[in-house]
Amino acid sequence: MSSLTLYTPAGVLAQAQPLKRAAKRLAKLGFDVEIDESALAKHQRFGGDDATRLAALHRIAKAGPHVALASRGGYGMTRLLDQIDWKLMVKSAERGTRWVGQSDLTSLQLGLLAHAKEGHHPISWAGPLACDDFGRSEEEGGVDDITQDCFTEAMSGALEAVGFRTEAGFEELGVRGQLWGGNLCVLNSLLGTRHFPQIKGGILFLEDVNEHPYRVERSLLQLQQAGVLDAQKAIVLGDFSGWRKSPLDRGYTLKTAIERVRASTRTPILTGLPFGHVRTKVCLPVGAKAELYVQGREVLIGWAAEHHHHPHLHRH
Amino acid sequence: MSSLTLYTPAGVLAQAQPLKRAAKRLAKLGFDVEIDESALAKHQRFGGDDATRLAALHRIAKAGPHVALASRGGYGMTRLLDQIDWKLMVKSAERGTRWVGQSDLTSLQLGLLAHAKEGHHPISWAGPLACDDFGRSEEEGGVDDITQDCFTEAMSGALEAVGFRTEAGFEELGVRGQLWGGNLCVLNSLLGTRHFPQIKGGILFLEDVNEHPYRVERSLLQLQQAGVLDAQKAIVLGDFSGWRKSPLDRGYTLKTAIERVRASTRTPILTGLPFGHVRTKVCLPVGAKAELYVQGREVLIGWAAEHHHHPHLHRH
Repeated sequence: MSSLTLYTPAGVLAQAQPLKRAAKRLAKLGFDVEIDESALAKHQRFGGDDATRLAALHRIAKAGPHVALASRGGYGMTRLLDQIDWKLMVKSAERGTRWVGQSDLTSLQLGLLAHAKEGHHPISWAGPLACDDFGRSEEEGGVDDITQDCFTEAMSGALEAVGFRTEAGFEELGVRGQLWGGNLCVLNSLLGTRHFPQIKGGILFLEDVNEHPYRVERSLLQLQQAGVLDAQKAIVLGDFSGWRKSPLDRGYTLKTAIERVRASTRTPILTGLPFGHVRTKVCLPVGAKAELYVQGREVLIGWAAEHHHHPHLHRH
Repeated sequence: MSSLTLYTPAGVLAQAQPLKRAAKRLAKLGFDVEIDESALAKHQRFGGDDATRLAALHRIAKAGPHVALASRGGYGMTRLLDQIDWKLMVKSAERGTRWVGQSDLTSLQLGLLAHAKEGHHPISWAGPLACDDFGRSEEEGGVDDITQDCFTEAMSGALEAVGFRTEAGFEELGVRGQLWGGNLCVLNSLLGTRHFPQIKGGILFLEDVNEHPYRVERSLLQLQQAGVLDAQKAIVLGDFSGWRKSPLDRGYTLKTAIERVRASTRTPILTGLPFGHVRTKVCLPVGAKAELYVQGREVLIGWAAEHHHHPHLHRH
């Protein structure tokens, strides 16, 4: 039975109910669930003050559950980055604790890669957040089946690929590289700091929410101008939704924004990854060596599963 | 008589009226106004496609008016940064063309500093935008007197200081350094790229609009983690407005955000600079050697005026 700890590293939980619902559901899925002692702490918009949240991270890293699943994102990790005991966190990931989450958790996951010393390979998981994905009542839509299945497979060590459909134009593309990425805003908020990993030849996945396409474009062009996009083998875009059109757009859309970025880099930019601030999301091993293959319009991102007892392709 | 060219380097002008109104008002102020040939060009949300806007920048740099005033900000400079002939632009600023604007123009103004070779000192002006500040009809409030006076003084070369009131706690502070800054989002969008100037011991001013305090805090902490804040002598914050409270804030405000950043850097962070996306704004020479002095709660930022015929303190 896999032990799983729920904790709150960033934004405050306004109510306890979603966390309790998530805990119950995860227990039903077979996890031995523990709720961290400060998971419901409150300090302004944060799940406890900085010291409290920092202590939770270190406490969980030392306890070493199989899974450390964040309750929600929001904002808060940035405040901790300079104080985190990265050696401890890297060791924790290498010893088998799967740090799972998305959004604000991107900075923890990329920080692990940035702070891993030569020869160390901490892997964490871009994936669901407890309250957002396992905490919704049935009236609110309950749990997404694909998200749940993909999560349980990933946590069992069996998940070894995710598949999705992309646009035309990438037929027969095949690349290998380190898989990394997450939330575009949060990833860019690490640029210029020692928490940004220097990854060459990687497969970079990105998503964002509530950002107008011009802001997505600006962030992507910043990555290009910083040498990041050209240094990758492939860019894979997840969901970019929740933004509002402006009367000034005059035909400018997310599609034209992506086209503009494509014109600035030689690295292929694929779309369609089921990941982001959406109900249906896959799990992706951040830091793992991966392969990306396209057959027709079907994309497969695969990596070495930890256990080969239950080889299982998760196709969306 | 000073020649002044109006141009559109970033966002599209939906209507010609505000630009024409600005041109008339500026002519009344004594400027010999020219409207650049592509100032009203339209391409999606941009004031012409990238080639058109890039050509306008270079055309004006070669023509060498006394003042090059952007019609508005928006988004668009980022697309041009890698293509700009920086040598030409630096030379233009050094020969006396005052590139004036704010918001998206921050990237042009900081790019000038980033690309200036040893021994070159291009100065540009953080200040008004033609449509926003000189283009409003009388029903829309017309032109702000202080903004107008400060602009005309700055353009005449006479402006040598701006004054404002700050919080308690900075009494007797006095520092000297290079004055630089602009819009926080745009400034941060240069981090990690070759367009970000490496300025040590400077006086950094920042403003932003429509950004929740947690985003302002994240951007400021990124600057801290990138080594930028600690490397300055002083940080001066302008206006940060237009954001909406969230029920999750629970007492978290712009004030608490600034306090959190102050806890992370030894550099004093002053507030109250009349600059930003507000009607009343001063003009500041980006790249100039400046002094900042506090007496009681009165702050004075001064620099060497170009002409000493009309020494004039602009106090807000």
